Amino acid sequence: MAKKEKVPGKVKIIPLGGLEQIGMNITVFEDDDSIIIVDCGLSFPDDEMLGVDIVIPNINYLKKNKDKIKGMVITHGHEDHIGAIPYVLKEINIPIYATKLTMGLIDSKLEEHGLLGKVKRKVISYGQTINLGTFKVEFIRTNHSIADAAAFAIYTRQGIIIHTGDFKVDYTPVYGEPIDLQRLGELGKKGVLALLMDSTNAIKPGFTMSESTIGKVFDNIFNENRKSRIIIATFASNVDRVQQIINMAAKYGRKLAVDGRSMVKTVEVAMKLGYLSVPDNTLIDIEEMKNYSDEQMVLITTGSQGESSAALARMAASLHRKVVINPGDVVVFSSTPIPGNEKSVSNVINELAMKGAKVIFQDTHVSGHACQEELKLIYTLVKPKYAIPVHGEFRHLIAHKEVAVSMGIPKDNVYIINSGDVVEFDEGEAKLSGSVEAGAVYVDGLGVGDVGNVVLRDRQQLSEGGMMVIIMVFDEVTKELVAMPEIISRGFIYTKEAGMIIDECTNITMECIEKFDNDSRREKNRIKNLVKENIGQYLWKNLKRSPLIIPVIIEAGV
Amino acid sequence: MAKKEKVPGKVKIIPLGGLEQIGMNITVFEDDDSIIIVDCGLSFPDDEMLGVDIVIPNINYLKKNKDKIKGMVITHGHEDHIGAIPYVLKEINIPIYATKLTMGLIDSKLEEHGLLGKVKRKVISYGQTINLGTFKVEFIRTNHSIADAAAFAIYTRQGIIIHTGDFKVDYTPVYGEPIDLQRLGELGKKGVLALLMDSTNAIKPGFTMSESTIGKVFDNIFNENRKSRIIIATFASNVDRVQQIINMAAKYGRKLAVDGRSMVKTVEVAMKLGYLSVPDNTLIDIEEMKNYSDEQMVLITTGSQGESSAALARMAASLHRKVVINPGDVVVFSSTPIPGNEKSVSNVINELAMKGAKVIFQDTHVSGHACQEELKLIYTLVKPKYAIPVHGEFRHLIAHKEVAVSMGIPKDNVYIINSGDVVEFDEGEAKLSGSVEAGAVYVDGLGVGDVGNVVLRDRQQLSEGGMMVIIMVFDEVTKELVAMPEIISRGFIYTKEAGMIIDECTNITMECIEKFDNDSRREKNRIKNLVKENIGQYLWKNLKRSPLIIPVIIEAGV
Repeated sequence: MAKKEKVPGKVKIIPLGGLEQIGMNITVFEDDDSIIIVDCGLSFPDDEMLGVDIVIPNINYLKKNKDKIKGMVITHGHEDHIGAIPYVLKEINIPIYATKLTMGLIDSKLEEHGLLGKVKRKVISYGQTINLGTFKVEFIRTNHSIADAAAFAIYTRQGIIIHTGDFKVDYTPVYGEPIDLQRLGELGKKGVLALLMDSTNAIKPGFTMSESTIGKVFDNIFNENRKSRIIIATFASNVDRVQQIINMAAKYGRKLAVDGRSMVKTVEVAMKLGYLSVPDNTLIDIEEMKNYSDEQMVLITTGSQGESSAALARMAASLHRKVVINPGDVVVFSSTPIPGNEKSVSNVINELAMKGAKVIFQDTHVSGHACQEELKLIYTLVKPKYAIPVHGEFRHLIAHKEVAVSMGIPKDNVYIINSGDVVEFDEGEAKLSGSVEAGAVYVDGLGVGDVGNVVLRDRQQLSEGGMMVIIMVFDEVTKELVAMPEIISRGFIYTKEAGMIIDECTNITMECIEKFDNDSRREKNRIKNLVKENIGQYLWKNLKRSPLIIPVIIEAGV
Repeated sequence: MAKKEKVPGKVKIIPLGGLEQIGMNITVFEDDDSIIIVDCGLSFPDDEMLGVDIVIPNINYLKKNKDKIKGMVITHGHEDHIGAIPYVLKEINIPIYATKLTMGLIDSKLEEHGLLGKVKRKVISYGQTINLGTFKVEFIRTNHSIADAAAFAIYTRQGIIIHTGDFKVDYTPVYGEPIDLQRLGELGKKGVLALLMDSTNAIKPGFTMSESTIGKVFDNIFNENRKSRIIIATFASNVDRVQQIINMAAKYGRKLAVDGRSMVKTVEVAMKLGYLSVPDNTLIDIEEMKNYSDEQMVLITTGSQGESSAALARMAASLHRKVVINPGDVVVFSSTPIPGNEKSVSNVINELAMKGAKVIFQDTHVSGHACQEELKLIYTLVKPKYAIPVHGEFRHLIAHKEVAVSMGIPKDNVYIINSGDVVEFDEGEAKLSGSVEAGAVYVDGLGVGDVGNVVLRDRQQLSEGGMMVIIMVFDEVTKELVAMPEIISRGFIYTKEAGMIIDECTNITMECIEKFDNDSRREKNRIKNLVKENIGQYLWKNLKRSPLIIPVIIEAGV
């Protein structure tokens, strides 16, 4: 706990992503002299962000304060914690600190964006503490659905602040050791000012099962389906899951192929860095699959979320160039649908089943996130003065708050904060202290930030009702109409049904134009508004539809 | 079972909806002389059916055979079993047979569509058998998440065929009696040719809990939140759920208000017909809520699926005119998200929680559909020769098939059929026998069937990339360009970013036009194709985007 007599400088915690856009994890720790950044994730678009590819954090606050920034520390190698790093580095060059596997995955991203070699990067081991300006950051071992996950003890002028990152408590992890509960207890004994902890599973009672329990599930599946080809879809980043599949391939004498760009990449990085151990003569190239019979093969693939462009969906839709699903194939979804993906996952399951595959999708996954009893364990060890639930939707943060309060944290010492909110610690006391610019920036194709709410609103209307463009051509001098109004529609109504509607819209347009004499036709906006209004009313009355109506006036000079 | 010596005429079973569009439940039973129809449901659009409001079955097969149709029997009053009735009746006048509550809900639909009084309708009681041409249909009591659900024993020339409709086995239902297992056993003893049974929960092991267990859940919630206003969202059609809320309101001395159009309608119909018993002075109008304190109120509302236009979502978004969510309110989701709705449900939960409401959404619902052990019970009683799993996605039907096979139905006697497939019974033996026209018809606004795949594909492209219209005006005689090409875009890119892009597209258009001399400009399609291609390439190369590009050539005569 902060020693009040020293009157140290203030310390601020500012999430730049977070609640407003789940997954975009990036948190600023700041004092008068230094800034450090914890994680730098991207998020995937919600349904209403039509056409948006990814969502990255607004870092204008960092750009304004770039001279104070000492470094970026990364908890683990998932997209929602590392995905925005290349975008941020293109704006501000910041040294990166992470554990080995995490850095391997970051490197692979930097390489893709042509940034490798242009950025200072340092691999840190568990237990190591680094100095970043006026902050010190200690890397503490945790467990998660990817190896090498770390929590941070951040030593600040106000006291120790712990950030867990994403974590679970796994007493029997597949790779490495259980979370360093001893060190968390030791720090708790010293006094911890604040604890920022993962809330993803805070609505779930009990304990998350160990990753190693899935090994037994796979063993049963391999044992019961000895004659079939086995295809397993899982998260590309879940290296431990992949290891367990490799173990089964070895045990049952099958060859293993890997498919899906992100899966191939992760397996490469993990093998190179020693996080995957693959027996000789087990891994084969997907091209070699044809040389083996079904019972000799297991294929690991991406697409466990039903993503339409991933390998599994392409197999299901017969669009995959190398893998054809046959009756008798066993397809395992070793995953749970992320909220919002349930329908697309079902669709892929149905398509696979229609091709005769036996699809296994229940009890084949464990979460990487701590449930309520694990949160209580950490509170018992760390005993922070303040709790700041992080990582999760608002309902998860609220559930986390209830857990914290049940563990004796005073209600007023639990801070649920949104992107840009500033929690300021002064003389060991926290308060909310205004907010800074933060939030989401949409990436569409190569464009960063050039698609915003106006564009999305138009896309929404276009998606629901299509559009109708009404083109009027006037003589630029006399303002006479020099062609019949031309009406173009798309996404509105079948062409064969459209004839009468279009004719009527043409008539309405003519009537509108005739209300203006040639002289007043200079007021193009008045004409356009009248056309838009009258056609809009006609379509709503007759069809109960609202396409985007766009009147255009062109002045032609001959 | 059919007696072979009689050589009776063939009997066909043809689903007109089903697999292709889950929810659109409508099944044709046909012999040489008669047709009867079981259920007539609508379905809600999938994500890719942009702008479509509802989906109804293609009934061209019925129109072609309308003289054979003897009537329509309805299992229960849910939208996916009655929703398309008005649309079908507008095309073919068919007598309707249903139990009392089911008919009440159908009537309310017919009234809305101005059809009441124009159609023959007959209320049938459990145990009653009706003659429909060469078929007889016996109504058998079942349980479901709405009262008055029926299974049908259909007496055909080939033998008895049982259709369960949606059902569960509830030994302690809130309203009425448990499913008539005795009669099912008796029929089984006589010999049942085929069983069409609900597959919705066929992937779930065990038994579905009784509806009455939810009463205890509500009792706890009311008991623990005596000082708070309680708002409960559930399916409008779940009359038994509503009854249990009414019971709690009475027990805890609260007034009850009802909100949401469909909820108000269902409560009205159910009260009128005696399916809801409401103690005096319990029900109040929503307008009177203001006269009561929080602890005196309970409000039942629609919107448990997160539907943006339903009452609950409007409360959450502060758009509701009569109900303002305050800190301390308790909001209960007595429902499970239907696949595809998970994200919108979460969003509403989050918004409510942000307003300070305590939101309860776990363990507050039981399903209305039978799980695996219940299916086994019915197979044990009915012992059909053939099994036809119905109601569910393909993966559910496959799981149902496994259950059937585990109960001794030969694998080849289980038929998984799609919309339009014909299962033909001849001399007591089944076979697949071709298919008839069937499938989905989209309703968008007032238009039925005027939105199809071309329109939806355009809406998809518009939704992802917006559009760009390029307007070129030529002199109709000389084919000279008489105005600068005009470029209009929507949903594509921020206006402020668009300037340079639009300028470049104008240049590209000019270059394309100049490749054609005035004479060859008569070939408008060649010019348009060239413009579309070149601008498409430019946008993809520079922005990695593909808006819908629509070149337009207008010929003006001055």
